[in-house]
Amino acid sequence: MTRDDLTTRLSSLVGDAGLITEADRMSGYLTDWRHAYAGSAAAVVRPASTAEVAAVVRLCREAGVAVVPQGGNTGLCGGSMPDSSGRQVVLSLDRMRRIRGVDPVNQTITVEAGVILQSVQEVAAAEGCLFPLSLGAEGSCTIGGNLSTNAGGTGVLRYGNMRDLTLGLEVVLPDGRIWNGLRGLRKDNTGYDLKHLFIGAEGTLGVITAAVLKLFPAVRSRATAWVALPSPQAAVDLIGLVRALCGDRLTGFEILSRQSLDFVLRHRAGSRDLLGAVHPWYVLVELSDTLPGAGLDGLLETALAEAFDRAVASDAVVASGPAQVAALWALREGISEAQNFEGPSLKHDVTVPVSSIAAFVEQTDRALRAAVPGIRIVTYGHIGDGNLHYNLSKPVGSDDDAFRARAEELARVVYDSTSSFDGSISAEHGLGQSKRDVIATYKDATELDLMRGIKGLFDPGSLMNPGKVLPHA
Amino acid sequence: MTRDDLTTRLSSLVGDAGLITEADRMSGYLTDWRHAYAGSAAAVVRPASTAEVAAVVRLCREAGVAVVPQGGNTGLCGGSMPDSSGRQVVLSLDRMRRIRGVDPVNQTITVEAGVILQSVQEVAAAEGCLFPLSLGAEGSCTIGGNLSTNAGGTGVLRYGNMRDLTLGLEVVLPDGRIWNGLRGLRKDNTGYDLKHLFIGAEGTLGVITAAVLKLFPAVRSRATAWVALPSPQAAVDLIGLVRALCGDRLTGFEILSRQSLDFVLRHRAGSRDLLGAVHPWYVLVELSDTLPGAGLDGLLETALAEAFDRAVASDAVVASGPAQVAALWALREGISEAQNFEGPSLKHDVTVPVSSIAAFVEQTDRALRAAVPGIRIVTYGHIGDGNLHYNLSKPVGSDDDAFRARAEELARVVYDSTSSFDGSISAEHGLGQSKRDVIATYKDATELDLMRGIKGLFDPGSLMNPGKVLPHA
Repeated sequence: MTRDDLTTRLSSLVGDAGLITEADRMSGYLTDWRHAYAGSAAAVVRPASTAEVAAVVRLCREAGVAVVPQGGNTGLCGGSMPDSSGRQVVLSLDRMRRIRGVDPVNQTITVEAGVILQSVQEVAAAEGCLFPLSLGAEGSCTIGGNLSTNAGGTGVLRYGNMRDLTLGLEVVLPDGRIWNGLRGLRKDNTGYDLKHLFIGAEGTLGVITAAVLKLFPAVRSRATAWVALPSPQAAVDLIGLVRALCGDRLTGFEILSRQSLDFVLRHRAGSRDLLGAVHPWYVLVELSDTLPGAGLDGLLETALAEAFDRAVASDAVVASGPAQVAALWALREGISEAQNFEGPSLKHDVTVPVSSIAAFVEQTDRALRAAVPGIRIVTYGHIGDGNLHYNLSKPVGSDDDAFRARAEELARVVYDSTSSFDGSISAEHGLGQSKRDVIATYKDATELDLMRGIKGLFDPGSLMNPGKVLPHA
Repeated sequence: MTRDDLTTRLSSLVGDAGLITEADRMSGYLTDWRHAYAGSAAAVVRPASTAEVAAVVRLCREAGVAVVPQGGNTGLCGGSMPDSSGRQVVLSLDRMRRIRGVDPVNQTITVEAGVILQSVQEVAAAEGCLFPLSLGAEGSCTIGGNLSTNAGGTGVLRYGNMRDLTLGLEVVLPDGRIWNGLRGLRKDNTGYDLKHLFIGAEGTLGVITAAVLKLFPAVRSRATAWVALPSPQAAVDLIGLVRALCGDRLTGFEILSRQSLDFVLRHRAGSRDLLGAVHPWYVLVELSDTLPGAGLDGLLETALAEAFDRAVASDAVVASGPAQVAALWALREGISEAQNFEGPSLKHDVTVPVSSIAAFVEQTDRALRAAVPGIRIVTYGHIGDGNLHYNLSKPVGSDDDAFRARAEELARVVYDSTSSFDGSISAEHGLGQSKRDVIATYKDATELDLMRGIKGLFDPGSLMNPGKVLPHA
């Protein structure tokens, strides 16, 4: 089938509004938001319904054309970028934005894949409920992408990952069949749990078109503290202390190194350090409660007093109101952007058991400094989940390209260290194309073999997002 | 291979302590605790390590002998019973009882499959933590069985099913390879999530030998009320009301019909109704908190006062102390046993969306009473999860066998009604052998097809717990 034949037939399936073939109009779909990846495509198809998605997938299969599903295009590993052949079709879910239903009694919401995460949060809030997934890209990332990458973020400590927030899925399979697994049930034990195969599969086993998500009681009280600490071990000790005194009111625990804070203070207008002295590490601690007036400030102050007594914290301030809370979170969330002003930023997203964090940071820092004297290590992340973003900036005054050229070598340093603590080299970003091959070094051969078997079972022609997730054999 | 050759070789793998071949010593493994299912076996093998499990599976594969994994043998659907051929081997995990590690900092516990659920609860409590899975059989059921059936119980409302409590697995695959997925990570997105395939697969895809489970902050305050209500709809309204006023302190919400309570009062020594009048429905409401002295009795009383105002509750009592709490839970947990005194008990375990409960009960009761005038419907369960145990007793004075003979017909009545509300015909008991065929009527053909494909991929020889879960084609 020629490209013209293909686009003519695609157009007959999705109409003019659903098809883009002009290079300039396709360009937004063919590079990611960081411009770290770029691809090319025969067409961008934007079906408006599950039936249209199925028809597109069937047609592409018949034509032997690979399909690359795409959500909000906010990924960090190139998982939704087509290759450079110009023969693949990008299947964007951005016209599937319907909220199919909200059921506050059942505590569920049913949404299509193209719905923006923030919309789900807002619809839930309007019903007096919480949808707890929260991450930097929430204003533009989509539920389909959140599902396909099993998104994490800052709410995982209390509410889990996207996987844990999902009850049911609707999926268009690589052969064009529709699997209707859109069940809103809290308990269902009638065979193999297929939804968990599609969640986190980055579109390689099918196209998620809709989901039933869990809702939770709304949060009505919150307290936030900014705490300076001497070391990562102190941060780990502080988690245990806060958990012992505050129980499951502990809902956020984010760490950042002084290096991370320095970059934000330097590059983000209006940011300031609330504590006078310089400290090596900081954490943002958040307590929350589903009851109003829950006395969380007092509870947090009690916990911090105990932390001072045990020399686990060096200094701290409890945020005095919403503006200060926002300012503190802006420090945490400004790191990634601020780091871009300091030259190339080599990003890594890893997890280790929380109990190994201190030893892991010590070992990894030592290895990195041995490899690149003067390297600036920008460590921050969701330490309550054992998840650190271990990002690297070049030594002051050194060459950008020389540093960039060592990206793979330095990634290996971080991953080898992660692996030595039984960690994961991708905590919440997935594998996409960037970690597709390196994973072969770190993952058990049996597990890789089972993954390949599943891929072959679901997508024998390898036309569903090929070149992602699975390492070349 | 003759039976003698097989047992000789099995003995060389697991030693005398690990092999049972005498009929009388095997009998405990060859019938379930209710004596509802019975099978026969060439041998019962009891490996003491993962390596031994793998060796046994490899040998049986080589000999073309089917393996039936078995945990605490407390299942309700015959999932761990061998067939009657006498050629299958029961692989009991009851010697794999090691707690491999507890990590309170990481909030995880690593245990072998044969560990009793209650032991995990106790070890967690000794570390100041909670392992929240709780169900009637907890004193004898095992973690491997809990995983293989994705066990539910009374803690699901707040903490989820066994699936939600699991971070990692170790599994012996049908070909004897060991998959080491024993990771204790809160975030890990490096490919397809295999653990969720094995959880709930009832041993048909491999033998789970160990798991890393999540721990939670210990519960330090609790309040329990016994509430009389006019209808299932009132119970659903009450959930919403309690959730609105008590947020996520709502951790238990169990319903029972007056018929259920009557049976318990009649047959369980020492049981008594705390409320004077007769009411059609009751719920047990539990609030809990991870802080001590959390004022939960007062919070619960406020919610109940509101419930009276809105005519959602007819009468209620807040338990005055641990003895009364235990007495209330004994009413709820005594139902299944009490029902046995009233003749055959036809059990069904279904879920519908919580918002459909009232309409579902009305429709199902009407259909059952039309089919069997005078039938006694013993409805109870975890209504907060939409999960009802819809059990049936014969009309007073009628014949046992005549009632038993209608089991399949009446199951269809319950399942048809469940299905019309997009529910599940097995909420927490699995399919085993008893629902293996009927599921074909209610499950989407595409889903069944994918399930069969996965079974074929993992176990092409169909030697791993054959005849369970998957309907005959």
